[in-house]
Amino acid sequence: MRIVDIIIKKRDGHSLTDEEIRFFINGLVNGEISDYQASALAMAIYFVGMDKREIATLTNAMEHSGEVMDLSSIKGIKVDKHSTGGVGDKTSLVLGPMVAACGAKVAKMSGRGLGHTGGTLDKLESIPGLSINLTDREFLEQVNDIGIAIVGQTGELVPADKKLYALRDVTGTVESVPLIASSVMSKKLASGSDTILLDVTFGEGAFMKNIDKARELAKVMVEIGKSLHRNTKAVLSDMNEPLGFAVGNALEVKEAVNALKGNGPKDLMELCYTCGAIMLEQAEIVKTKEEGIKLLEEAIKSGRAFDKFVEMVKAQGGDASYIYDLDKFPLPKHIVDIYSTKEGYIYSINALEIGESSMKLGAGRATMSDVIDMSSGIVLNKKVGDFVKINEKLCTIYTNKENFDEIIEEIKDAFKVGKDKIKTHPVVWEIIE
Amino acid sequence: MRIVDIIIKKRDGHSLTDEEIRFFINGLVNGEISDYQASALAMAIYFVGMDKREIATLTNAMEHSGEVMDLSSIKGIKVDKHSTGGVGDKTSLVLGPMVAACGAKVAKMSGRGLGHTGGTLDKLESIPGLSINLTDREFLEQVNDIGIAIVGQTGELVPADKKLYALRDVTGTVESVPLIASSVMSKKLASGSDTILLDVTFGEGAFMKNIDKARELAKVMVEIGKSLHRNTKAVLSDMNEPLGFAVGNALEVKEAVNALKGNGPKDLMELCYTCGAIMLEQAEIVKTKEEGIKLLEEAIKSGRAFDKFVEMVKAQGGDASYIYDLDKFPLPKHIVDIYSTKEGYIYSINALEIGESSMKLGAGRATMSDVIDMSSGIVLNKKVGDFVKINEKLCTIYTNKENFDEIIEEIKDAFKVGKDKIKTHPVVWEIIE
Repeated sequence: MRIVDIIIKKRDGHSLTDEEIRFFINGLVNGEISDYQASALAMAIYFVGMDKREIATLTNAMEHSGEVMDLSSIKGIKVDKHSTGGVGDKTSLVLGPMVAACGAKVAKMSGRGLGHTGGTLDKLESIPGLSINLTDREFLEQVNDIGIAIVGQTGELVPADKKLYALRDVTGTVESVPLIASSVMSKKLASGSDTILLDVTFGEGAFMKNIDKARELAKVMVEIGKSLHRNTKAVLSDMNEPLGFAVGNALEVKEAVNALKGNGPKDLMELCYTCGAIMLEQAEIVKTKEEGIKLLEEAIKSGRAFDKFVEMVKAQGGDASYIYDLDKFPLPKHIVDIYSTKEGYIYSINALEIGESSMKLGAGRATMSDVIDMSSGIVLNKKVGDFVKINEKLCTIYTNKENFDEIIEEIKDAFKVGKDKIKTHPVVWEIIE
Repeated sequence: MRIVDIIIKKRDGHSLTDEEIRFFINGLVNGEISDYQASALAMAIYFVGMDKREIATLTNAMEHSGEVMDLSSIKGIKVDKHSTGGVGDKTSLVLGPMVAACGAKVAKMSGRGLGHTGGTLDKLESIPGLSINLTDREFLEQVNDIGIAIVGQTGELVPADKKLYALRDVTGTVESVPLIASSVMSKKLASGSDTILLDVTFGEGAFMKNIDKARELAKVMVEIGKSLHRNTKAVLSDMNEPLGFAVGNALEVKEAVNALKGNGPKDLMELCYTCGAIMLEQAEIVKTKEEGIKLLEEAIKSGRAFDKFVEMVKAQGGDASYIYDLDKFPLPKHIVDIYSTKEGYIYSINALEIGESSMKLGAGRATMSDVIDMSSGIVLNKKVGDFVKINEKLCTIYTNKENFDEIIEEIKDAFKVGKDKIKTHPVVWEIIE
């Protein structure tokens, strides 16, 4: 078997056999297949696509390219949720404790962020003392003890994805449904949870710019999961404007804590209740979503969701006094309000532009070696559908950088204002199961 | 400027600017652009294509990626001819002396072969003593003195093509019109001749399997040449069956010498007369092709074309006694006739299969490090359209290898025989100018 023949076969529109796909992934990981051949094949897949069997085989081959987590020592059904990415997305910080407080087991391996703002791990690390580096044993014990842990990858999971994603990132082959689907699903499958809920975002701040592409991706991933015998569901959620008000690491942790106390932004809470109800169904704790939502509301009202978050912070070595007193989080040098120069109804707040502005303020990484400033970011004062007057506050920026006049102009440009009142949509557009 | 943005732009169907194309070629040569990015871009070009301006700019950038030959010290119009490849193609060995005998200047840089049989350089080297490694000065002087030299590249011509072609060869991106056209034309332009005649082959033994693809490629290359102010024409020639009877290095030299003596196979001579007449027009030696053909026929009849070949062999250090007495060429250990097991009219002789069988007999290289056995190959006894009886000779194989029974079966399979008499076509189907 020669990789050049496999590339030509795919290029010419044919399906690859399971053997050919495994030959590719094995060769990629052991170095027998060169980067330039892998990137040529990725580009051919971008143009030609893959059928369901091919994607499932690719996912399975990637899943088993390295270590696979064994969570069997954790009692009960382990649930996992993954978002394809967004701006201001602190869902895991709220949703995890909510469903854990209802009895589901959350053994979550999360990632760092590139572009926009940090990932869930970066956000958690804005809590002083909190460690995301647990050993396998610590990780399993913590989930057994308190029902939740959010950590970085422990072993060498899915090295094929690490290598292929790094290549795709610099060769213009990121935006391919078979490649995105196999990348996401191979990591989820290797992390070992019993159930997977995918939050597939669409819109300005997401990979997928429109709902049709997001639906296509979601369906493919749900099918992969099912064909590989894992309970897999998906929601399609709107990421045109940032989720909630806060964008930036410590700023988002504070918003998440307030959400757990019952003071969450409407869109964030809607997403958490919808996802949480599905996860409780998947965990076989409830029979219907309505039942699940009731249980989740009760977990918030009673304070049990908040307590679960505190418990997790403590278990991972974090200083919980910050959670009890959010004012303890250090503030950056500059906190500047931005005012509207127009009057009308806000019909869009471009999530991508807000995300990129946050990164420029210090909240995200342009390259993996950049250091994040945990205190920086943007807090919106208005959301899509709100009316804004001239000189009314649009948002507040937090930064330790100097010379941010240009960034302020970019942020202002991200808000689009019109005369007519607009109809707002719920965040979750569809559930795919 | 970032190469990943250029890849994405092409991938998404857009034309690249001249600056972007030059950035790619410069970066490829100086190593700033990685192989995996170059191969991803090549695959995107394979799918999306390039417009005329892009191909001309790509060709021009590649042409100037290294040294460019200066042939201005050679008096008169320098003509060059290039074939996109075939099996049994000894045209340059016949055509070069023919047009040089008529007064055109042939300063030809040729290549070695990979697959099938050797290239023109390999064939020439089957003549004992003949050197294809001349200095620039020797090369220019020889063409000024006797009107012809066929040599290997002297300087570092078109390093961009060398690098890109090596990548394309192993990444399934060879068969792309913009990439083939820019590869061929950049080398021809950098070799410095005043005129270029392209022999674009089609059929089983060619890059382009059908005439429509060959015509597309030919038109693109002629346009590139014209837009870069070089007199460029093309012929489309049929390479479904091998050209002439002989396939293999010394075997083809012997056939070429016989052709120069007036005993050439019909198809080879037709191609040489058609190409030669066009080259004499390009060299402004004749005004019409008819006039050109008369001149060429006279050069053969008078023995001047044969003498010119002998002159070139001597000038490059070759032992001309081999040319006067072709029986001096050493013969291999095994010379075996192959007989037909069917009766009927031969309607095809698969050139690719004959080429590959020749390679297996020792006449070609599977990899660039293989050593060619100059004496081996195949000599056909029948051509397409001929009638063959059972047990009549189809061809003769020449080899130093043992265990060639399987190869014999493959060669037999390359001959297809039917009941009905078939209409044969001339070799040259079209002239594009």
